[in-house]
Amino acid sequence: MINNNNVLIIGAGLCGSLLALRLAQRGYKVDVYESRPDLRKVDISAGRSINLALSDRGLKALRLCGMEEKAREICIPMFGRLMHDRAGNTFASNYSGRENEYINSISRGDLNAILLDEAEQHENVTIHFNSGCKKVAIENKIAYFKNYETNEQFKVKADVIFGTDGAGSSLRKSYVSERKFLFSYSQNYLNHGYKELEIPADKNGNHQISKQHLHIWPRGDFMLIALPNRDGSFTVTLFLSYDEGEYNFNYLTSEENIIAFFEKEFPDALALIPNIKEEFANNPTGPLGTIKCSPWSYQDKTLLMGDAAHAIVPFYGQGMNASFEDVFVFDEILNHFEDSQETINWEMVFKTYHKARKKDTDAIADLAIDNFYEMRDHVANPLFKEKRQLEMNLEKTFPNQYSSKYSLVTFNEHIGYKEAMDKGRAQDKALLNLIADDEVHTHLEITQKELKVILEKVLQETNEILKEDKIAGL
Amino acid sequence: MINNNNVLIIGAGLCGSLLALRLAQRGYKVDVYESRPDLRKVDISAGRSINLALSDRGLKALRLCGMEEKAREICIPMFGRLMHDRAGNTFASNYSGRENEYINSISRGDLNAILLDEAEQHENVTIHFNSGCKKVAIENKIAYFKNYETNEQFKVKADVIFGTDGAGSSLRKSYVSERKFLFSYSQNYLNHGYKELEIPADKNGNHQISKQHLHIWPRGDFMLIALPNRDGSFTVTLFLSYDEGEYNFNYLTSEENIIAFFEKEFPDALALIPNIKEEFANNPTGPLGTIKCSPWSYQDKTLLMGDAAHAIVPFYGQGMNASFEDVFVFDEILNHFEDSQETINWEMVFKTYHKARKKDTDAIADLAIDNFYEMRDHVANPLFKEKRQLEMNLEKTFPNQYSSKYSLVTFNEHIGYKEAMDKGRAQDKALLNLIADDEVHTHLEITQKELKVILEKVLQETNEILKEDKIAGL
Repeated sequence: MINNNNVLIIGAGLCGSLLALRLAQRGYKVDVYESRPDLRKVDISAGRSINLALSDRGLKALRLCGMEEKAREICIPMFGRLMHDRAGNTFASNYSGRENEYINSISRGDLNAILLDEAEQHENVTIHFNSGCKKVAIENKIAYFKNYETNEQFKVKADVIFGTDGAGSSLRKSYVSERKFLFSYSQNYLNHGYKELEIPADKNGNHQISKQHLHIWPRGDFMLIALPNRDGSFTVTLFLSYDEGEYNFNYLTSEENIIAFFEKEFPDALALIPNIKEEFANNPTGPLGTIKCSPWSYQDKTLLMGDAAHAIVPFYGQGMNASFEDVFVFDEILNHFEDSQETINWEMVFKTYHKARKKDTDAIADLAIDNFYEMRDHVANPLFKEKRQLEMNLEKTFPNQYSSKYSLVTFNEHIGYKEAMDKGRAQDKALLNLIADDEVHTHLEITQKELKVILEKVLQETNEILKEDKIAGL
Repeated sequence: MINNNNVLIIGAGLCGSLLALRLAQRGYKVDVYESRPDLRKVDISAGRSINLALSDRGLKALRLCGMEEKAREICIPMFGRLMHDRAGNTFASNYSGRENEYINSISRGDLNAILLDEAEQHENVTIHFNSGCKKVAIENKIAYFKNYETNEQFKVKADVIFGTDGAGSSLRKSYVSERKFLFSYSQNYLNHGYKELEIPADKNGNHQISKQHLHIWPRGDFMLIALPNRDGSFTVTLFLSYDEGEYNFNYLTSEENIIAFFEKEFPDALALIPNIKEEFANNPTGPLGTIKCSPWSYQDKTLLMGDAAHAIVPFYGQGMNASFEDVFVFDEILNHFEDSQETINWEMVFKTYHKARKKDTDAIADLAIDNFYEMRDHVANPLFKEKRQLEMNLEKTFPNQYSSKYSLVTFNEHIGYKEAMDKGRAQDKALLNLIADDEVHTHLEITQKELKVILEKVLQETNEILKEDKIAGL
């Protein structure tokens, strides 16, 4: 039995509730404090149903906690992208050449609810809602809260404090303000923001467009995407610059401009969004930021996890998956350090976790930014289109020998993000250069034998690129 | 004549005083507020004589302001590195194969003094000392100060405010705290800190080791460097981890440990630093941080320049040079926008400057970090040693056809840091891989004809690398 096991978790969002569940399963005494009301009792989504993409890294962590099946029950599988052009034509592009590789649309609220339900099944877990953390005195391990129902202020002391309080983390802000150690920190915003809209269900409660796809309306400088909800609706997100280019959020302030913009750029989507005027005016425009920091922990006292440690932009669909994978990696490290100890050495646990995990969360942050530019700049690039087509072919024909960067990141949960990034980038570079130099190309009647030759070339060139980078110390 | 020409500059350090001088030369009315006393009247160096490396980019900006000759009078040319091993053996390594390419050791205080003197020659410049900026109300262009002699608080309004107040910039902090726009910001610390020590002049006032070199005692995880001063002394800097490795600043707290460390690692230096015990105890241990941010300006009101906008680590000797080059680039943009206008469009000036300059200051920040790892990890790597030797040979034999990365960054002031970085990195990669693959190698009796073949190979391979990166969208 472990002695120093009074755990305080700040934030009962997706990461905090999964962490609470896992630590409870391991026997810790867990108190979770959440600033918002209990989302199972109060609708806090302001009329919007936010959904996310759940994929293999997230599922791996849910499986660890016995939650995979319950999560799958509320999932809608999406097997690929469906691109919409201005004329309303659509083009499908699968996520993988392998059939069992797909991502899942899931409601943030519903997933959070089943995690809270499961955590509360454990008598060693208490969740306190409406309790906003104001600051943490990290030296003394005391967190200061305000109860938003009673306006009462109170403080809580614990053996160890976890900050899973998201991109605006109060624990992270306390690291900055207390200045007890050299804290490396970055917040980087894209020039784009996002706004959510809704395609409602038809009158029979059915989806109006394919629910087996993540829909994309790529337009270079801006884009619209849509993910299906289980009630037949889609949550639509517009990504657009705040102030650059012909169209931007600063320009789209009149109903007239908004409608004209959608009529020109997204006529098929416009026809499906009946409340666009109200939604555009009332739904907030959110920023798209990346947060990195280091170290995540202070001595044996506090640790940042999830978005609080590494908020990323949504363009790889990995934000939630990375946060869930944090819990998985942390659990593996607890396995190692809990062995035969009566008190756990939290400082060693935190340092080992940071060392094991930091490179991977940095990598997924960079990959998500890459994908923003890739979607924006390369979507109409014939070289990139041919590459994508060739990769599908390779994955279909050689399912055990080839995985694209997207597959490595999304479906190969047994390797870290960093390894997926390094290998995936080298592969992309090899493929693009082989195509550009006309050394490989795909065509309709390509034979398996021809593809095999291409595969060998790509693998050889990829290894060459990785070797040369290594020699140059990159 | 320009109307909105009341300029407030926060900080009269190297960048602020050069900027004040240049804006005065252009006819602006300039008020400079500096938190410290006038360094020409009060010795504020706390007994330490800090020196810096002045090279071609800095000289280019000084030339623009008519200050090159005065600066050269107080320079000590350093033609290369002199490496010291544990046994006291030394090995010289020139900065370039070209004779006219060298860097200069210069006293920060002396250089600052001649810039202040020259700025004050202009009646449209007023410098206010002992005036610490507390915050800036950026919307109203009001800076708030405290006079450190009288403790009086006061505020100043201007047409435009420049923050040249260094890595801890109060203008930059106001960008963060006022939250009027999405401000991307990063502070990244190395695990190493630094501490300054002194090798005094001999009893005749002469330098005890070669003053024509920048001395380096490279030891992998840590290193010592020394730059000459005009009074015969050297300023020595120890770069060492705070808490990692066998030796670190946390470990070096007793005189016994300090002396044992120097006896083992730097015996020849130890013999030249008589006051090591006092200096080690009394001189502060400074952090090594990189600061990046964006945007640098707010509307037509404020602009960050120099370290306030982009503080970098000292391992490329480019901190001051980059700040001076800021003034040069800004001046070029003023040339463009001042033409035939009665009021200057500061917003366009600031945006154009940011667009022109940001990629270059990001590049030198990254190059400086690279050099930290290169010095630490590669100094004993035979591949890197052979590369360096080959490059010297190429520069000597083909002075107009080959420039190493170091030369491109340090001596090729007509290209930006970003271009120097991209080309220099590709060249390094080409050379290292050609050497590793045994396709090129240098030897004592290498002929010009053999070298010419190597040059062609390197240039071709470099272009190939740049082309492949471009195709991959890197």
